[in-house]
Amino acid sequence: MTSETIGTWVRSVPLPDEEAAQAARARQQTLTKPPGSLGELEAISVRLAGIQARAIPEITGKAVLVMAGDHGVVSEGVSAYPQDVTAQMVLNFLQGGAAINVLARAVGARVAVVDMGVAVEIPQSDGLVRVHIADGTANMARGPAMTPEQAVRAVEAGGRVALDLIESGVDLLACGDMGIGNTTASAAIIAAMTGQPPEDVVGPGTGISDGALRHKVAVVAQALERNEPDPGDALDVLAKVGGLEIAGLAGAMLAAAGRRCAVIVDGLISSAGALVACGLQPRVREFLFAGHLSVEPGHRAALAALGLEPLLDLQLRLGEGTGAVLAMPLIEAAARVLAEMATFESAGVAGRVGE
Amino acid sequence: MTSETIGTWVRSVPLPDEEAAQAARARQQTLTKPPGSLGELEAISVRLAGIQARAIPEITGKAVLVMAGDHGVVSEGVSAYPQDVTAQMVLNFLQGGAAINVLARAVGARVAVVDMGVAVEIPQSDGLVRVHIADGTANMARGPAMTPEQAVRAVEAGGRVALDLIESGVDLLACGDMGIGNTTASAAIIAAMTGQPPEDVVGPGTGISDGALRHKVAVVAQALERNEPDPGDALDVLAKVGGLEIAGLAGAMLAAAGRRCAVIVDGLISSAGALVACGLQPRVREFLFAGHLSVEPGHRAALAALGLEPLLDLQLRLGEGTGAVLAMPLIEAAARVLAEMATFESAGVAGRVGE
Repeated sequence: MTSETIGTWVRSVPLPDEEAAQAARARQQTLTKPPGSLGELEAISVRLAGIQARAIPEITGKAVLVMAGDHGVVSEGVSAYPQDVTAQMVLNFLQGGAAINVLARAVGARVAVVDMGVAVEIPQSDGLVRVHIADGTANMARGPAMTPEQAVRAVEAGGRVALDLIESGVDLLACGDMGIGNTTASAAIIAAMTGQPPEDVVGPGTGISDGALRHKVAVVAQALERNEPDPGDALDVLAKVGGLEIAGLAGAMLAAAGRRCAVIVDGLISSAGALVACGLQPRVREFLFAGHLSVEPGHRAALAALGLEPLLDLQLRLGEGTGAVLAMPLIEAAARVLAEMATFESAGVAGRVGE
Repeated sequence: MTSETIGTWVRSVPLPDEEAAQAARARQQTLTKPPGSLGELEAISVRLAGIQARAIPEITGKAVLVMAGDHGVVSEGVSAYPQDVTAQMVLNFLQGGAAINVLARAVGARVAVVDMGVAVEIPQSDGLVRVHIADGTANMARGPAMTPEQAVRAVEAGGRVALDLIESGVDLLACGDMGIGNTTASAAIIAAMTGQPPEDVVGPGTGISDGALRHKVAVVAQALERNEPDPGDALDVLAKVGGLEIAGLAGAMLAAAGRRCAVIVDGLISSAGALVACGLQPRVREFLFAGHLSVEPGHRAALAALGLEPLLDLQLRLGEGTGAVLAMPLIEAAARVLAEMATFESAGVAGRVGE
């Protein structure tokens, strides 16, 4: 099942603008540095030019989406923390005390907190976007996590939140998450969509014992057996073994790509969302940057399937968008180098010997 | 040979404050995130606490030193660029058009450009610190690059520049360089001080052909044979096969460590300077962060000898302090997380199940 809105978004995703990318590549050769000496920064600037369809791309507004949702599968005992922590952390985000708030302030990014489906009522407050498709998902170990309708509505809602941010001036969007139990759902999505066995993509999440990790692997295996998600149908995978916040992230990436907005994927959960978005429309991948490599084993498999190289490797495993926001200064720096550096000609610097 | 000033600096370098580091470590456990989930950021915050001797360290002023010097060894044909480029790039730094200017502006760091010994006269201007020990070094392939007196004066001058910056409020100092030929001198220092053979630590620098690379290896080998630097005497190595800007960087690191100022090492050249500084006083290492891993093969050897893990790996090979400045937001973020995050208690967030 899909929807008219999702269908429209899928068709709207363009290809990167090759002419702009080529102009950026050519300009890099004229700047006062040995060609290629800024490595990944040069590659980022060229990708950004293609994404924005501008020879000299610019970052003018940054935001991080923190999509929150609860997971019925926590009743299987897969997490080190109780389910209440999802709502408590949402309040922490709204009060500005979580890691993502601190990191977003440090880089000048807005934080948009979205209740995609937290199990308990969150009092309305500034900074909270209330979507709330359901009081969390059902237990995927016993049946589908969501109905197809819930999955579609969550993708659409996530996309609309991203479009509102883009409308308000955001051109660099980090994708983060909060949801006790969501490394379990994400590992299930990654296993389903990459074909990797659960034992290779399930990790300790917030921190569980070896025994609990073996149990978590078994729960993911059971969810996949019970639900038989179709790897060729991203919405089917999402509905059966996903989560409401993962659906919201997938929708945000899909809609943002359609508007030529660069997106930074964070860790395991946001990469699971990216796999769903790219399952709906493979061109979405061209608009994604991988902020970092998480210590969760499934993250490497997800990034490999997405064909993305992580910018940072800081042994993070927090989520919330932290690794994506930490990468923002690198992407901004790449854009600024291309825009602001002098050329050999303008600065009167000699070229290579014999040229 | 050494000097009273250098001797005083060597004796002034403290150990990190273990009590402050321990307090930072304990505070990390109370913040609203799974313990350890911010990985390297947590480790950075603990190191910073020890460096600043404050349980909650703070970064309030950032600067990058760009030390410039010329190298007599360029007459052996070791670089892809003519010697004039050193002075031309110094002018580019002073006009704000180089990569380091753009990146420093992006993170809010000052740029201090130092003529440690450029071969031609640079007109005096704001932002230029004129030390100018000599019109470049002598050709190390034929004899010592510097006299012992020149090396000592360059180390002292570099230290004084750093102390002036610290006096003006800098508490995070990035170390960068400019000097056509200086990857050759740096590789020679790294080979001498780590015992690695020249062929393992000499790289393409700004970009030379395979044939020119083999010649560069031979030139480094010849410089080491001709001068016989004593690996146990860092000033001897520096004088015989080093450079004036490398001496300045070594002095800056030594003096900064004595003032509990955190220093970010950049690529090959600045790491060669760090090896000299740590040769004079091994405790300097405790005050250093490695900004990134360069593609120059000698950089990995230098960082391993220093016992430093690079924060970034972006395939850079530009120098100027670019990789060090790009890492500044990560170090600032680490300090801010420790200072600004809510605790489980203050935010009313539940702990782990069963605790």
